[in-house]
Amino acid sequence: MEASIQSPYLLFLADVPDDGSAKTAMGIWQWRRELCAGQLRLPGCEVNLGLPELKPAEAVQRGIRTMIVGVANDGGFIAPNWVATIVAALEAGLDVASGLHEPLAGVPEIAVAAKRTSRRLIEVRQPAESFKPGTGIKRSGKRLLTVGTDCAIGKKYAALAIEKEMRSRGIDADFRATGQTGIFISGRGVAIDSVVSDFVSGAAEWLSPAAAPDHWDIIEGQGALFHPAYAGVTLGLIHGSQPDLLVLCHELGRTHLGGFEGFAIPSLESCMETYLAAARLTNPRARFAGVSLNTSRSGEAAAARALAETSARLSLPCCDPIRNGVGPIVDNILSMAG
Amino acid sequence: MEASIQSPYLLFLADVPDDGSAKTAMGIWQWRRELCAGQLRLPGCEVNLGLPELKPAEAVQRGIRTMIVGVANDGGFIAPNWVATIVAALEAGLDVASGLHEPLAGVPEIAVAAKRTSRRLIEVRQPAESFKPGTGIKRSGKRLLTVGTDCAIGKKYAALAIEKEMRSRGIDADFRATGQTGIFISGRGVAIDSVVSDFVSGAAEWLSPAAAPDHWDIIEGQGALFHPAYAGVTLGLIHGSQPDLLVLCHELGRTHLGGFEGFAIPSLESCMETYLAAARLTNPRARFAGVSLNTSRSGEAAAARALAETSARLSLPCCDPIRNGVGPIVDNILSMAG
Repeated sequence: MEASIQSPYLLFLADVPDDGSAKTAMGIWQWRRELCAGQLRLPGCEVNLGLPELKPAEAVQRGIRTMIVGVANDGGFIAPNWVATIVAALEAGLDVASGLHEPLAGVPEIAVAAKRTSRRLIEVRQPAESFKPGTGIKRSGKRLLTVGTDCAIGKKYAALAIEKEMRSRGIDADFRATGQTGIFISGRGVAIDSVVSDFVSGAAEWLSPAAAPDHWDIIEGQGALFHPAYAGVTLGLIHGSQPDLLVLCHELGRTHLGGFEGFAIPSLESCMETYLAAARLTNPRARFAGVSLNTSRSGEAAAARALAETSARLSLPCCDPIRNGVGPIVDNILSMAG
Repeated sequence: MEASIQSPYLLFLADVPDDGSAKTAMGIWQWRRELCAGQLRLPGCEVNLGLPELKPAEAVQRGIRTMIVGVANDGGFIAPNWVATIVAALEAGLDVASGLHEPLAGVPEIAVAAKRTSRRLIEVRQPAESFKPGTGIKRSGKRLLTVGTDCAIGKKYAALAIEKEMRSRGIDADFRATGQTGIFISGRGVAIDSVVSDFVSGAAEWLSPAAAPDHWDIIEGQGALFHPAYAGVTLGLIHGSQPDLLVLCHELGRTHLGGFEGFAIPSLESCMETYLAAARLTNPRARFAGVSLNTSRSGEAAAARALAETSARLSLPCCDPIRNGVGPIVDNILSMAG
């Protein structure tokens, strides 16, 4: 993200049917809660962050500077029934930031309103850099990539939690955002799925440049290698990231890809084998350092049992970052890298 | 390709060092020789198609209508020393067509010259469609995808040869172009490596829509699944294409990826296994129908021996499309599909 976004934020939740469709807003709220001052929902919205419900004019009165389009749909387009609210936000005096594929400025009513009101449209999904194809040449520094058994399964959360835990131990670690939410949270990064396909691995190389030998880049994974829509993005990101270590992210009990019901998730063992084969093309020493298990749909006891069982079965530390943090994974990262 | 390109063509070979860098021009010349009326080379050019050497004004005198930028470099940009020639072509009265990543219209001198002369800039690498993510939903009709052990190894040539052989037998078959040269040759298609990465499999689904049960789409492959720069494009194309049959393309004696010397090409068996695993995500019945072996660097006897040996080893018909055509592969396609 090149343009700076002025806080505090009004999170626009539109009319999305579930938390997954609001993952941008939820991510910002989870990781930068101090910046979120209100939410704006349309009729039919099934997501509630518990923030004050504010209309654009009320938001401006409370000192809010930017409305963030915090939702996503398949294809990342601006739904026609969102346009009036976005225009109203501009007219009230807010900037509007979006991480959708479709640029805000591509909707004539929005472009005209931005011009008329002299407000800014901030498009984090429009790469500001021009990238080149990947080289496959090894870079200095250490890299960890989170990979997943599906989309929207906790890869960003795990990476942010690992960065936080490493920094708390005094380790030089940087979260590297590859998606809109991560970019909103960390203030920089590349929306890798918006990059022209020829340049995905090159963009991943750019995102995580050569660094000091003890520096860690903790790179946010995208998609899944066996996803019929997004596997190509995942593979290019793996090859360009050249991860030394991988962390597998999974949601306990999820058996099929979300929204792609015909597609079963392979066993964790099979996933790990597939990811390692891909990663070893550009880093033959790639290994798994742990498993991040989202157990939010289970009770305390069932979650603890699943974490212990998965850890024993795969001989890797297995954590739920939300329940218990990622301490054991970071212990293992340091031990493996040592 | 949406805009029609007026023939005959002047093929601009620039100053490229080898045939691989001129593969667009060479492909047009091989498959649409009747449209190629001249070549234009800069000092240092190591490629020669044996066409008349024409300056732009001479080309116009001979009735040529369009200069095609028939070369490529890493990154697909317009080299500064090509600009004067492109401007001269426009000033002489030629349209200019390009399949490079960088749009001609992005170079101010070229854009200004095109406007001044009212000539057209035709950019086949700029997708005219807007795509969506892939769905993974099976489509009617039959599909064959050529896949390779490297880039620039004969995937397009094999697909065109298979289309030609099938059509000569009265089979309803369409070549589906996924790269600039194929688009120039067939007059339509999608430059898949120019599509935003999130939409690659969706673009591949669009390229080869539902069709009659006996219709064959013969889809041009791209990249290679174990290529550090382009594997993501390859994987998305495979998933979206949902091929029933695959043909593996290889160059006899090539041991490493061109331009990526640290990267060895796996055994053909290993390549086939990797490709099948990827293809079976969206088409569990995917199988290999043959091997297309480029033996151009070998003598007649060595080539014949390699073809026979490879065929016996893999239990698949193995042809060099340039030496002998692809009859045995098409025999096998029909037998497997029957």
